[in-house]
Amino acid sequence: MIRSRLSGSLDEDALKLTSSLEHDRHIFKYDILVDYAHVLGLLKVGLITKEDAKRIFEALREVEKLGLERLSGEDVHEAIESKVVEIAKESGMKMHTARSRNDEIAACLRLFARDKIIEILSELLELRKTFIEKARQYFDCIMPGFTHLQYAQPTKLSHYLIAYHDAIRRDFDRGIEIFSRVNKSPLGAAAFASTPHELDREYVAQLLGFDGLVENTMDASASRDFLIESLFLSTSIMLNLSRFCEEIILWASEFDFVELPDEFSSSSSIMPQKKNPDVAEIIRAKAGKSVGYLASACTILKALPYAYNRDFQEMNSLLYVSMNECLLSVKTFRKMFSALKFKEEVMREKASKGLTLATDLADLLVRKGVPFRLSHKIVGSLVKKNRIPPSAEELIKEAESFGVKIEVSEDELKEWLDVEKSLERRKNVGGTAKEELERMIRERERKISEDEEKLKVLKSRIEERIKHLMNEVERVCSGKG
Amino acid sequence: MIRSRLSGSLDEDALKLTSSLEHDRHIFKYDILVDYAHVLGLLKVGLITKEDAKRIFEALREVEKLGLERLSGEDVHEAIESKVVEIAKESGMKMHTARSRNDEIAACLRLFARDKIIEILSELLELRKTFIEKARQYFDCIMPGFTHLQYAQPTKLSHYLIAYHDAIRRDFDRGIEIFSRVNKSPLGAAAFASTPHELDREYVAQLLGFDGLVENTMDASASRDFLIESLFLSTSIMLNLSRFCEEIILWASEFDFVELPDEFSSSSSIMPQKKNPDVAEIIRAKAGKSVGYLASACTILKALPYAYNRDFQEMNSLLYVSMNECLLSVKTFRKMFSALKFKEEVMREKASKGLTLATDLADLLVRKGVPFRLSHKIVGSLVKKNRIPPSAEELIKEAESFGVKIEVSEDELKEWLDVEKSLERRKNVGGTAKEELERMIRERERKISEDEEKLKVLKSRIEERIKHLMNEVERVCSGKG
Amino acid sequence: MIRSRLSGSLDEDALKLTSSLEHDRHIFKYDILVDYAHVLGLLKVGLITKEDAKRIFEALREVEKLGLERLSGEDVHEAIESKVVEIAKESGMKMHTARSRNDEIAACLRLFARDKIIEILSELLELRKTFIEKARQYFDCIMPGFTHLQYAQPTKLSHYLIAYHDAIRRDFDRGIEIFSRVNKSPLGAAAFASTPHELDREYVAQLLGFDGLVENTMDASASRDFLIESLFLSTSIMLNLSRFCEEIILWASEFDFVELPDEFSSSSSIMPQKKNPDVAEIIRAKAGKSVGYLASACTILKALPYAYNRDFQEMNSLLYVSMNECLLSVKTFRKMFSALKFKEEVMREKASKGLTLATDLADLLVRKGVPFRLSHKIVGSLVKKNRIPPSAEELIKEAESFGVKIEVSEDELKEWLDVEKSLERRKNVGGTAKEELERMIRERERKISEDEEKLKVLKSRIEERIKHLMNEVERVCSGKG
Amino acid sequence: MIRSRLSGSLDEDALKLTSSLEHDRHIFKYDILVDYAHVLGLLKVGLITKEDAKRIFEALREVEKLGLERLSGEDVHEAIESKVVEIAKESGMKMHTARSRNDEIAACLRLFARDKIIEILSELLELRKTFIEKARQYFDCIMPGFTHLQYAQPTKLSHYLIAYHDAIRRDFDRGIEIFSRVNKSPLGAAAFASTPHELDREYVAQLLGFDGLVENTMDASASRDFLIESLFLSTSIMLNLSRFCEEIILWASEFDFVELPDEFSSSSSIMPQKKNPDVAEIIRAKAGKSVGYLASACTILKALPYAYNRDFQEMNSLLYVSMNECLLSVKTFRKMFSALKFKEEVMREKASKGLTLATDLADLLVRKGVPFRLSHKIVGSLVKKNRIPPSAEELIKEAESFGVKIEVSEDELKEWLDVEKSLERRKNVGGTAKEELERMIRERERKISEDEEKLKVLKSRIEERIKHLMNEVERVCSGKG
Repeated sequence: MIRSRLSGSLDEDALKLTSSLEHDRHIFKYDILVDYAHVLGLLKVGLITKEDAKRIFEALREVEKLGLERLSGEDVHEAIESKVVEIAKESGMKMHTARSRNDEIAACLRLFARDKIIEILSELLELRKTFIEKARQYFDCIMPGFTHLQYAQPTKLSHYLIAYHDAIRRDFDRGIEIFSRVNKSPLGAAAFASTPHELDREYVAQLLGFDGLVENTMDASASRDFLIESLFLSTSIMLNLSRFCEEIILWASEFDFVELPDEFSSSSSIMPQKKNPDVAEIIRAKAGKSVGYLASACTILKALPYAYNRDFQEMNSLLYVSMNECLLSVKTFRKMFSALKFKEEVMREKASKGLTLATDLADLLVRKGVPFRLSHKIVGSLVKKNRIPPSAEELIKEAESFGVKIEVSEDELKEWLDVEKSLERRKNVGGTAKEELERMIRERERKISEDEEKLKVLKSRIEERIKHLMNEVERVCSGKG
Repeated sequence: MIRSRLSGSLDEDALKLTSSLEHDRHIFKYDILVDYAHVLGLLKVGLITKEDAKRIFEALREVEKLGLERLSGEDVHEAIESKVVEIAKESGMKMHTARSRNDEIAACLRLFARDKIIEILSELLELRKTFIEKARQYFDCIMPGFTHLQYAQPTKLSHYLIAYHDAIRRDFDRGIEIFSRVNKSPLGAAAFASTPHELDREYVAQLLGFDGLVENTMDASASRDFLIESLFLSTSIMLNLSRFCEEIILWASEFDFVELPDEFSSSSSIMPQKKNPDVAEIIRAKAGKSVGYLASACTILKALPYAYNRDFQEMNSLLYVSMNECLLSVKTFRKMFSALKFKEEVMREKASKGLTLATDLADLLVRKGVPFRLSHKIVGSLVKKNRIPPSAEELIKEAESFGVKIEVSEDELKEWLDVEKSLERRKNVGGTAKEELERMIRERERKISEDEEKLKVLKSRIEERIKHLMNEVERVCSGKG
Repeated sequence: MIRSRLSGSLDEDALKLTSSLEHDRHIFKYDILVDYAHVLGLLKVGLITKEDAKRIFEALREVEKLGLERLSGEDVHEAIESKVVEIAKESGMKMHTARSRNDEIAACLRLFARDKIIEILSELLELRKTFIEKARQYFDCIMPGFTHLQYAQPTKLSHYLIAYHDAIRRDFDRGIEIFSRVNKSPLGAAAFASTPHELDREYVAQLLGFDGLVENTMDASASRDFLIESLFLSTSIMLNLSRFCEEIILWASEFDFVELPDEFSSSSSIMPQKKNPDVAEIIRAKAGKSVGYLASACTILKALPYAYNRDFQEMNSLLYVSMNECLLSVKTFRKMFSALKFKEEVMREKASKGLTLATDLADLLVRKGVPFRLSHKIVGSLVKKNRIPPSAEELIKEAESFGVKIEVSEDELKEWLDVEKSLERRKNVGGTAKEELERMIRERERKISEDEEKLKVLKSRIEERIKHLMNEVERVCSGKG
Repeated sequence: MIRSRLSGSLDEDALKLTSSLEHDRHIFKYDILVDYAHVLGLLKVGLITKEDAKRIFEALREVEKLGLERLSGEDVHEAIESKVVEIAKESGMKMHTARSRNDEIAACLRLFARDKIIEILSELLELRKTFIEKARQYFDCIMPGFTHLQYAQPTKLSHYLIAYHDAIRRDFDRGIEIFSRVNKSPLGAAAFASTPHELDREYVAQLLGFDGLVENTMDASASRDFLIESLFLSTSIMLNLSRFCEEIILWASEFDFVELPDEFSSSSSIMPQKKNPDVAEIIRAKAGKSVGYLASACTILKALPYAYNRDFQEMNSLLYVSMNECLLSVKTFRKMFSALKFKEEVMREKASKGLTLATDLADLLVRKGVPFRLSHKIVGSLVKKNRIPPSAEELIKEAESFGVKIEVSEDELKEWLDVEKSLERRKNVGGTAKEELERMIRERERKISEDEEKLKVLKSRIEERIKHLMNEVERVCSGKG
């Protein structure tokens, strides 16, 4: 349809290579919304008549019913427009007045990303709730903490889960910030130089629930940083999930800290006893994919002149797949995590494995006035001699051999090396003492409520605008407009 | 020093492989600041005496003077501590009380990233100013706009430069947001489980100019999303620069739109006539590197248990190099851009090359009541026949052949196809009309002032805190504390 | 079907997340081939009867006719097997004897990659032919050469095209090498520990046209380097294409060296005059995607234990899409390039633009006994004074001002600065002189013939084996086996 | 020195940004070798006199002694040349005759990569030997095999180690292939169009130990696929190492299969008991870096015109760091692995943990005539009921409940479920039976010897050529030439 000055049609392989139709289903509904809003905009400034608008709307409704699979063209925009022209004739030929596919696709992508961000943020909120609920459920569960995957110090599962929560909360905050840049309207930019026809860009933006404009019209059609940062958001989330998944895989293996729920496990085609953590593995792998999507998009964008280039098209499918995979991963992860059973006894039992109280011992010596670096050496020497935990006597003697005189009783030593007491001693802000854990949980519960409210506002504003847009369309169609 | 329980020293190649000393110079000064603040913290809660603190401070001052090159150890922390112990003896052995290298390195990295973000933001502000100044300087300069690197429609250089500005402004905003997550204190987390010793984490955080804590102590030592998003910030900026650089490379070549300043050009070792845009090429390439740094860091972080793992270390040098290269690139780009001369006459002359007014012609037909899709075809047909710009008669005839009757005079046509008038007709928000350009420039000048103020506040708050920290150190040393 | 020890079915979202069915269509035919061969193998060693084999083969033929869309399961292997069981009952339940999905999927991927490599190599050969044919066609076409996108020295289009050819020839060679590692059979490895049942691994490998085994059975199921290097092959090819495409985009723009064929160009939805190089842009962008696919796969594989992990599955779709996009890109690029018209006059005219003969001038001075570094300065000075080409007198004078006495006549100078003669003087191996160009072209034509032969051998060996396999299946089915 | 036509010097920041001096130390010695060979080449064809050559050689020797740190310039080439000019005066000014930095840098990079590949291949050979030696040492060590990190089937450590060997052997083969493309001479290409001066490119190539030419001179200066595939080689190796390192990290943790050697372990600054697998973690992380280096280089190269562009420079440091890190990683990994102690008893004991013999049980049923898919279900059902291993009676009953009648005695069952016998039954090619393991080890020992021979030939050919080159230089200097 659009090849007007070019002879013949596109080479068959070239068409296959350059067509975006395969992926355009992700924005089909957005393209139609953009058409509705654009036509209402044309009507408002008098570039078309109410009669034209009505005919176009009716055609668009038919197109909507047909679905993308039953249209044809090199891309979704052309496919829809040519159908509209077929149905609405001359009126249909006016739909593309004062715009270009350049601002149109940018608008569709932004609507897709904006909605997807909101969906992801909703799931992140649910995940945060799950972490905090689990932290309450396993409030007293003691476990070993690791660094370098080696037994390090005792800790508490609730403390761990709050850390998970906090990581995800930062992703939530990032999503909110990125949303504010994504949800802007490029419409009215046309190819990049706007148009000689008068437009009301703000009106069209409002109809679609955008919060303002990508003002400069070259910027509106040439920029793709909104797409890159949307990909970054998925990647950031997926990286966090991959870390939690790694722990689930480890914990469901030799560590034996968790029991995988059957409905989130897979078996083997050959080994009848297997119960595999496939969900966690797939999410871990999808995090790797996410990194590649981001790298691809950056590599494509690098060094493109600040204008529309067809290369942009190849970034779109990266956006669709990355955000969709992220959304599904967050959701499935949350369900799996929610169904996970922690083996509290195993965790508790292993909490003091691998000499995890050696640091406490060194800290006891600090209490006794031994400089930390020296107490670290004294305890290190006991470790070497395989004397952990030492008797009070052994400890005193070992200290002596380093030229240090201390007094310590067996009871004192025992109390100091009690796992539970060790955890209760860590009362500093952010530490493992119960009171502090309780405070942190409460504070997060409060913040989750606030964020729910914040997200609800964002969501309902958009929903209302889209509802209003559809009402306007209906008004025109029913002749009441 | 720290190998206490391990026999013998690390294998020579293993040391070479695992040592971070080569890159630690980037955080040497931060490590010392952290030491000062940590020791003041220990003093505050009574874990060491004023005398101890004094001795440690004196040792640290000596270490500072020596510089990292004259210390030895497997990393900067150990190198400094062991020198402090050497100098301050038993007092020195107390410096590492109630902390671990895990919270220490996280603090150093955050201080590095925070300061670097502020430096980068300052340069971005200067760059924004440069774009807007140039937009004023070349306010009336007309040029051809491209899409797909093909002549598209006339536009104005000032309009283009505002687009550049707006892209960079978004990076500025990202920087501000990321700063708020980076500039938090992990200190007090120790290995991840905090410590049985009482600490005043907020006090230490304030001393270092942090805005609050990474509260949960596991999160404080296990999270590296702050590092990933700092890398993303560099990448986002570098991608924008790479696009502007590509245009400079093109424009300094066959397009002939700019004259490269000699002091930003290179010559050839063999071809005496060459004047090459090496600065722009290097920045373009460094954008590619930036993508790889980010991919590396994500790949390293993926699937690491949520705890400290030595893998983290390999991310640090990525942070240093990426942010430093970004900073130098922004600065050099700005200077080069500032010295760039645009060839206004060449640009103006080529503004209507490649039939860039064909869209205006189609828009004229729209004014005459022809539906856009049809007018697009009519003009396309004229293009095919090589009849652009057509005479009024040709246009009328061509329209007729599509079954459309229009009236248009030669004068009307001429006026409509005048480049300057075409640009003035684009009065929509964000368009190329003078009034709108003037408005956009003014608004950006205002916003730049605001952002300068905002950045100044951030900067001076940190500077004052660091000054206060050094005063506290001095007070202890001089016995007035 | 395979969930035997697990209760209930997989959670709906978990299934969506972990199912590979969407991408399995790429290996559906290979999975069936593997089934045929595996069953013949079981028959050969007596693990099943001829009657079982026959029933399974008949079921597989039905499955083949049904197509993957009409099967169901979490992946292609399970979908096929469960249908075979449904049709062939107890015989069908024997199909999976002595194997696992682990060796099965590895075999399918290797068959896919092997066939795709051969298809790509065939297209690369065609592309090499195209470059050499074009080099013959434009044998005498003179053009400017660039470095840093700046006019550098004159060169010849045929010389350029030989360079393109040579780059692609290296990719061809890489493909041959990688093929040799890809085309090995993992079958018989089962989960990783082989099986207690006797198997004839070599026999099955031969049936499928594999050249030998991935011998160690853990290696057979745990290794994915074959997949990574297949992705690397695509990436290497795409990078080369991206560079050629960049030049087409430049040359079809302001440089004006080529006329894009209409059937490989696109227009604009708004600008009726546009003729855009979309094919070249899309290939350029797909090169960027290719880099991301490779990075994704590497990131997924990194740090996975040397055994089968479900993460592997996420690498498969990367293989399919990367190799398919590469194949289509090579093919379409070749067709576009073949249809490209070079504007010989424009190229010739610009060959001496931008003082491209300055180096010749310096070389003339070398001939006159002036040390090169000095002659470079002398000419540089003339460039500065805008005196290129100089008169003989000017040249002599300029040399004098550098303390050098030379003799040169106007005629000598003119001859030396003649573009054609300059090119003929470059007679060194690989240079631009006609004789050398002719030699290089002939040698490449010969090598292309050799490589065609080589590829034909590879291809027909596989085709014959697959034909033989199908004959064996037929023999069993017809009861003649 | 080279800025002749440009006024003033390069802006200070621009110099900092564009200078490669920081990284050029990696090729300093190669640049000098290239100078020696190039000058001998000039001498051979009479472009300079023996006296000139002598003076240049003497100057180069002095430069060599000074070292790069004491030279100055924007890059190594300029730094050396300007020093040579300073020392050898007019003779020195002839050194750069008939060449450009474009062919010079390509030559240096190829020499670097070629030597580094050979070093890496030598280390890979040592590593292969280590794996095979360990396989002999732990020939009978039984261990559990995992998939999805879940207990799967029993296997043998020697079998595992052969798998490791085979992966590394493929990397070795890749290295050999890539070497053949890397070790070609670009010299004589000059900027890209060769030179009007006669050169003997083959002679110079031979002097430097190159195996032939990058023939086409544009290809010689414009291609960087040799660099990309060198980076790919490192990445492929690092990915394999990362997988082995992951297992070491796991096995040194809760799995408890290995004892880390102290000299390859690190401790903690706070936790005195820690013994961390830092070497393995760092290699794992460096694998992630390697992926980023490759992605960076690809991203930089993408879409660069097929000619020299300054962007290339930024790829060089990626080559240096990636290959050096790979070399050090292979070496250190090999030493660590060599010192690793496997805990045979722990491994043996856990070999049948997690019901790893369930598959054997299903295979026993197959022997008894039960179709595999059914036997898989029967065993799955026993697993569900927690009846593994079952008594003969239980097994018979369970089979019955699936409608299957089998006979099996307690003794038969016991024998079949004996781990050692299970492993011996896997006699297929590549399996775990002793005879087969022995055969595989012997075959690999033979192949290692062959590869040692092959590598020795490559190495000594280069060494002899370089020795010959230095002799030629000496002959000229001593006036005997």
